Amino acid sequence: MGELSHIDESGKANMVDVSQKAESIRTAEAYAEVNLSAEAYLAVKNNSIAKGDVLSVAKIAGIQAAKKTSELIPLCHNIFISKVDISFDFVDEKNQIKILSLAKTEAKTGIEMEALVAVSTAALTIYDMCKAIDKSITISNIMLIKKTGGKSGGYLNEKYGT
Amino acid sequence: MGELSHIDESGKANMVDVSQKAESIRTAEAYAEVNLSAEAYLAVKNNSIAKGDVLSVAKIAGIQAAKKTSELIPLCHNIFISKVDISFDFVDEKNQIKILSLAKTEAKTGIEMEALVAVSTAALTIYDMCKAIDKSITISNIMLIKKTGGKSGGYLNEKYGT
Amino acid sequence: MGELSHIDESGKANMVDVSQKAESIRTAEAYAEVNLSAEAYLAVKNNSIAKGDVLSVAKIAGIQAAKKTSELIPLCHNIFISKVDISFDFVDEKNQIKILSLAKTEAKTGIEMEALVAVSTAALTIYDMCKAIDKSITISNIMLIKKTGGKSGGYLNEKYGT
Amino acid sequence: MGELSHIDESGKANMVDVSQKAESIRTAEAYAEVNLSAEAYLAVKNNSIAKGDVLSVAKIAGIQAAKKTSELIPLCHNIFISKVDISFDFVDEKNQIKILSLAKTEAKTGIEMEALVAVSTAALTIYDMCKAIDKSITISNIMLIKKTGGKSGGYLNEKYGT
Amino acid sequence: MGELSHIDESGKANMVDVSQKAESIRTAEAYAEVNLSAEAYLAVKNNSIAKGDVLSVAKIAGIQAAKKTSELIPLCHNIFISKVDISFDFVDEKNQIKILSLAKTEAKTGIEMEALVAVSTAALTIYDMCKAIDKSITISNIMLIKKTGGKSGGYLNEKYGT
Amino acid sequence: MGELSHIDESGKANMVDVSQKAESIRTAEAYAEVNLSAEAYLAVKNNSIAKGDVLSVAKIAGIQAAKKTSELIPLCHNIFISKVDISFDFVDEKNQIKILSLAKTEAKTGIEMEALVAVSTAALTIYDMCKAIDKSITISNIMLIKKTGGKSGGYLNEKYGT
Repeated sequence: MGELSHIDESGKANMVDVSQKAESIRTAEAYAEVNLSAEAYLAVKNNSIAKGDVLSVAKIAGIQAAKKTSELIPLCHNIFISKVDISFDFVDEKNQIKILSLAKTEAKTGIEMEALVAVSTAALTIYDMCKAIDKSITISNIMLIKKTGGKSGGYLNEKYGT
Repeated sequence: MGELSHIDESGKANMVDVSQKAESIRTAEAYAEVNLSAEAYLAVKNNSIAKGDVLSVAKIAGIQAAKKTSELIPLCHNIFISKVDISFDFVDEKNQIKILSLAKTEAKTGIEMEALVAVSTAALTIYDMCKAIDKSITISNIMLIKKTGGKSGGYLNEKYGT
Repeated sequence: MGELSHIDESGKANMVDVSQKAESIRTAEAYAEVNLSAEAYLAVKNNSIAKGDVLSVAKIAGIQAAKKTSELIPLCHNIFISKVDISFDFVDEKNQIKILSLAKTEAKTGIEMEALVAVSTAALTIYDMCKAIDKSITISNIMLIKKTGGKSGGYLNEKYGT
Repeated sequence: MGELSHIDESGKANMVDVSQKAESIRTAEAYAEVNLSAEAYLAVKNNSIAKGDVLSVAKIAGIQAAKKTSELIPLCHNIFISKVDISFDFVDEKNQIKILSLAKTEAKTGIEMEALVAVSTAALTIYDMCKAIDKSITISNIMLIKKTGGKSGGYLNEKYGT
Repeated sequence: MGELSHIDESGKANMVDVSQKAESIRTAEAYAEVNLSAEAYLAVKNNSIAKGDVLSVAKIAGIQAAKKTSELIPLCHNIFISKVDISFDFVDEKNQIKILSLAKTEAKTGIEMEALVAVSTAALTIYDMCKAIDKSITISNIMLIKKTGGKSGGYLNEKYGT
Repeated sequence: MGELSHIDESGKANMVDVSQKAESIRTAEAYAEVNLSAEAYLAVKNNSIAKGDVLSVAKIAGIQAAKKTSELIPLCHNIFISKVDISFDFVDEKNQIKILSLAKTEAKTGIEMEALVAVSTAALTIYDMCKAIDKSITISNIMLIKKTGGKSGGYLNEKYGT
């Protein structure tokens, strides 16, 4: 059966020892979607068309939060991050904003959590800026899309895009 | 049409001025769900039944992150938090963990973002501890359930529980 | 002779005791200027005309840093900040960007340092984004323009604007 | 024309990808000056002659802030810092304190921002400790003096010392 | 029997809800002692006699850490701190440095943890600066000396000074 | 006579330059003990027997604090931490909880402070959760037990266990 790597044999929290792992270039991509009311969706889209700040603020928030991942997720390692990128897509028929992140490192351990923290925080920042219009916004399908590098090699999430 | 309160008339980022608002007791409740594979779900549930640390770590992570909300969400105010609580429910038929948070403050502005950051970070922490078993875990339906206090009064999210 | 309030009679560091001071609404405004080469100046100005991200990133950086003031300035108090705003002006004849900040609080102590940290960090962020073009950018005339509130009342800096 | 490396072709914020860059020893030196009233200048100088804490506090503040650079400057990388030093000089004829910093790293990217954050924060800390005497203190000529290491090689700022 | 206030009836972590508590002025004093080898003790004492930086650095570290208490102690509230002070005494016959702290707030909850974090971090900072001479330094008798304010009224630790 | 490595020849604070040091795997182990009243001791022990959260919270607090060491201890370097572990032992005859930590890194400088911060913060967190029952708890004998790696080689503290 599957073993929780962050839990020792007695069920207690355990920070994985990565001192014997080799440094390698690793990447991770993550995804989140923000589902808005028609009104809030249009407000963000119009702001974006007018090259306003909403998505810029969300992007900066996501990048900054990625750098705080090891402060937020208790058993994460404090790794050097060589790149974080975040992009947004508007899906008119669903009043939905899709968020994609890419995180890179050269480290002894993977960078999945940084990519996931980036999209989550970007999504929450959109919520924050829209909550005066629509408090019922939901954030869904936060997931890892893909990872590369590390001993276990790559991973591609088959759930993504379906 | 709806106005983005965190955006000024030229579309630029704007931290709302709350200096004229009255302090009042305010609460917010938020929700998130973590969808796991059968194997990862059982690993967490068995750890929980054995009173292991998985959900304790997730809870502490959520509480700590709530206290960092104004560092994570750029236009949030740094408010005093009088209480954060987080609880978890196992939904066997869906291999799903539901997360609920409650945040309280006595402040000039609301505490919705703290409640949302709490559930999101708790969910991401579960992901972190389970990712060796299941990288395809998704986090969905992050939403505000309810808020009380403040000039605009209460709010109840009709989407919740449907 | 003038007394350094943050230094005790033996010359040692001293965090001022504000427990007997009354809470009142206080504001502070600060200023900084960034002097660029013609090339770097135009790059920022063109990005700004095209509603790009340079000044948005600098603004967010300044707001976020203001919230970290008590972490950065050792003898500062951790006060609630009700508002931070930052604006920019282009001065073509000097290849200069002027930065203005406004910070507000309702607290037992003033908010000058928050306003000054905001303009300084916004200026350094502009430096960071332009340093590939121009490493010789200078930041000058960081100063407090004005303060209101508190027992000592208002202050207007006569050096500003001269 | 010059390109803003932290901005992509559409004008949006961009964290530079340094994953392909080689690690090398890099240094940066920065400068700032604090211009005080005669009274505030003497208070700091006398405290310094008496080996009081003012400049010690400013130095520690600068070192600590340098370690926070990637939290303050949104598109900066979180690099390992092998050394930060800060020194001060009194210029009696100008009632001015000059601040010099040196920062070192062995990293994939340069350490200019850390050196600049160090002098800026040290200068702001002097302001904080003197503001009860003199609110009109200005901080000027924050600049990079010199950098070594990295693919682009060294840089010497000709503006410095003129 | 005694109840752990930070633990609920099922043994789980619980952040105490202080929203119904009244704000009042509260103080706390804490103590720690650092036991050094004769050589390390003299090095610190001579540095102190010469008005060097060792104890200044330790003091600033303690003040700064007190402001981070709610980040360090998971179930602590993020309260406004109106004052932190730290002082040191040399005890020649024991090669010991005594550390005392005082913390003040006007808040809904007490400030004991801030006072304790202050002395602990000051003590660890002395360890850090002396460890090249003496790695066997011990820190002992970290305790709360006294508290005032709050519904439960004052407390005086009878163990202190015995 | 012994030299304080973090102090320069004029007695001023000095961050040691580690740029010429080689990276190597380094470990450090530290110790602390928490002395409780019989009532508080039993409350923690019973919570632990019932697999409650007290020691889990203390452990997570210690791990998280270790990752913040360079923020807390002014002259510490921000190093990558490959592992932190914390364990607890109950000593019934003394109403004492012993805390042991292990920290690992592959870095240019040692990881003693991280191990010491981990045990100190875990101990303070126990204090926090027990202070409603017993305010007179003391934390003692915080010490480094052992270190390995680095140019100076290993160290074993003869005071430990005596």
